[in-house]
Amino acid sequence: MIEDKNQSRTSLSDLGEFGLIEHLTKNFTIKQSSTIKGVGDDAAILNFKSKHIVVTTDLLVENVHFDLSYMPLKHLGYKAIMVNLSDVYAMNATATQVTVSIALSNRFPLEAIEELYAGIETASQIYNVDIVGGDTTSSTKGLIISVTAIGEIDSNDIVYRNGAKPNDLLVVTGDLGAAYMGLQVLEREKEVFKVNPNNQPDLDAYTYIIERQLKPEARKDIVKLLKDLNVKPTSMIDISDGLSSEIIHICKQSNVGVELYENKIPLDPQVISTCEEFNIDSTTIALNGGEDYELLMTISQEDFPKIKGNPNLTVIGYMTEKEKGMHLVTRGETLIPLIAKGWNALNDQE
Amino acid sequence: MIEDKNQSRTSLSDLGEFGLIEHLTKNFTIKQSSTIKGVGDDAAILNFKSKHIVVTTDLLVENVHFDLSYMPLKHLGYKAIMVNLSDVYAMNATATQVTVSIALSNRFPLEAIEELYAGIETASQIYNVDIVGGDTTSSTKGLIISVTAIGEIDSNDIVYRNGAKPNDLLVVTGDLGAAYMGLQVLEREKEVFKVNPNNQPDLDAYTYIIERQLKPEARKDIVKLLKDLNVKPTSMIDISDGLSSEIIHICKQSNVGVELYENKIPLDPQVISTCEEFNIDSTTIALNGGEDYELLMTISQEDFPKIKGNPNLTVIGYMTEKEKGMHLVTRGETLIPLIAKGWNALNDQE
Repeated sequence: MIEDKNQSRTSLSDLGEFGLIEHLTKNFTIKQSSTIKGVGDDAAILNFKSKHIVVTTDLLVENVHFDLSYMPLKHLGYKAIMVNLSDVYAMNATATQVTVSIALSNRFPLEAIEELYAGIETASQIYNVDIVGGDTTSSTKGLIISVTAIGEIDSNDIVYRNGAKPNDLLVVTGDLGAAYMGLQVLEREKEVFKVNPNNQPDLDAYTYIIERQLKPEARKDIVKLLKDLNVKPTSMIDISDGLSSEIIHICKQSNVGVELYENKIPLDPQVISTCEEFNIDSTTIALNGGEDYELLMTISQEDFPKIKGNPNLTVIGYMTEKEKGMHLVTRGETLIPLIAKGWNALNDQE
Repeated sequence: MIEDKNQSRTSLSDLGEFGLIEHLTKNFTIKQSSTIKGVGDDAAILNFKSKHIVVTTDLLVENVHFDLSYMPLKHLGYKAIMVNLSDVYAMNATATQVTVSIALSNRFPLEAIEELYAGIETASQIYNVDIVGGDTTSSTKGLIISVTAIGEIDSNDIVYRNGAKPNDLLVVTGDLGAAYMGLQVLEREKEVFKVNPNNQPDLDAYTYIIERQLKPEARKDIVKLLKDLNVKPTSMIDISDGLSSEIIHICKQSNVGVELYENKIPLDPQVISTCEEFNIDSTTIALNGGEDYELLMTISQEDFPKIKGNPNLTVIGYMTEKEKGMHLVTRGETLIPLIAKGWNALNDQE
């Protein structure tokens, strides 16, 4: 008889579905006063009193949205929450609850799912959201994570995508393109590893961009900053598909045009150096890279003094009349029409 | 060159993700006054004023929860909504909104997804819920549907699983075991079809049980009925995993025992005859079959006159002190301990 040497692997079928859910949720704590009842009944009960409620949902599929050969499960759990909270913050709201559903094949032992949930729990602690429900089931192939995030907001504070006006400033948080370049480095190392599994990669030059890919942070701090600065954007969206695609969403929904200045787009030095190494144009990456989870907003010109010089906010262009179209103004002062290449999940697979 | 004769297939990649979402959501209408903003922004905005909010979510995975070889996509879309609304009704609440995320491989043409959405939309019309968000992405294999349902309720009306008291009556809606037996018939016909694809099955004797499997209805009517009868159950749960498993949930969460009478369990004649045909014990099916989406509740004895004789509600037992345990009282008056075999998704696959 062959002995199982891998003693730390607990089979999911040993626990059963109810056992698994109980095991995974037993440490969940309630932090929000709006959570009346979390996990453990047919549904969660929430009470937001006079506040409006924000609801958003995203689905992450193995080998479409993430690759477990370089994505640690703990990071994946964390990122699954970030992706959704980012949408809540893009409404200028406070995230309060999430539900998390996972489907997984029997190739995952309990310990792997504990890792995933550890990341989910860490995110919920840091971002102060309650995990109030979910579903755990099997898949015939791979891991699928579905998160729904809920938030609260005073109706006066809501910022939609459709409020941009001509002459408003186009403002972005943080820097762009890093998550995409981090992914390129990880993909390259995966190929190197396939050829020579003993190769020890030196990734010191890429720590920032790899972290941006593996452990992005949603910009909760920006919602607070805008409140502190007494600035209410005229429109806002989060950057998940790429700057270009998100600007076009705002323009179309707000019926305005835009002039985006290439030389204003914030790039981290690691993005620039890695782009040079990979021989890719860094502007193309910033425009189309995706997964940055920064916030893109338009603000009225009169609010400019309030944000001027703030290191978190960069003015990258301004909105125009719709008839003027949507353009990138290059370093050579040429106008190029903006196109949404974005990150098109439906074209990404074979 | 081989011509594509199948002119009605539109590739999903022709449309792209944004195109697909726009195409699928363009006909969605808003029916609920609590829906301030539906699809089209980073998140939906809802306003429930003084009401409490109910949130529940479920994930359906191809070849785990459904088999497209006999499940029409329109029915699948409908059923995905029912599964979630059932949880909202189990809190005694009114369902108001859903979000629907789907991941699908490129083997599905646009027309297939339109079918799926047609079922989702039909359900949302009939059950008066708004579709306020979702995510559409690709999968490497099969179809995955994630639905989050939201409802509203006055805080006084909420019914949890943990309120059952000794001497309360155990009451179930509708009849049990039909969905499971419908599945058995469909599985058998699939095997027959594999052997002889020209065989025309005669399913007339199974119409009710097949419909229970393919097109279940959530018991929205019961929430209204209970209100009309002025009955507030002391506990309630929906029957998705099987009667036995749900009774045990109520007992454990309410700290009570139960005596369930075998001869009181409501069975449709088609269930009885099909069980005989398959040589399965019908009580076992009712206890463990699952997917019935009926409501199981406990009500105070003093409410009995209000429900007496109502064809929608069957008293099947009563709650006891916890120490007396959880038992099935058989037709032969023998006490058998209740065991949750349920429908364990995690053991169901290879």
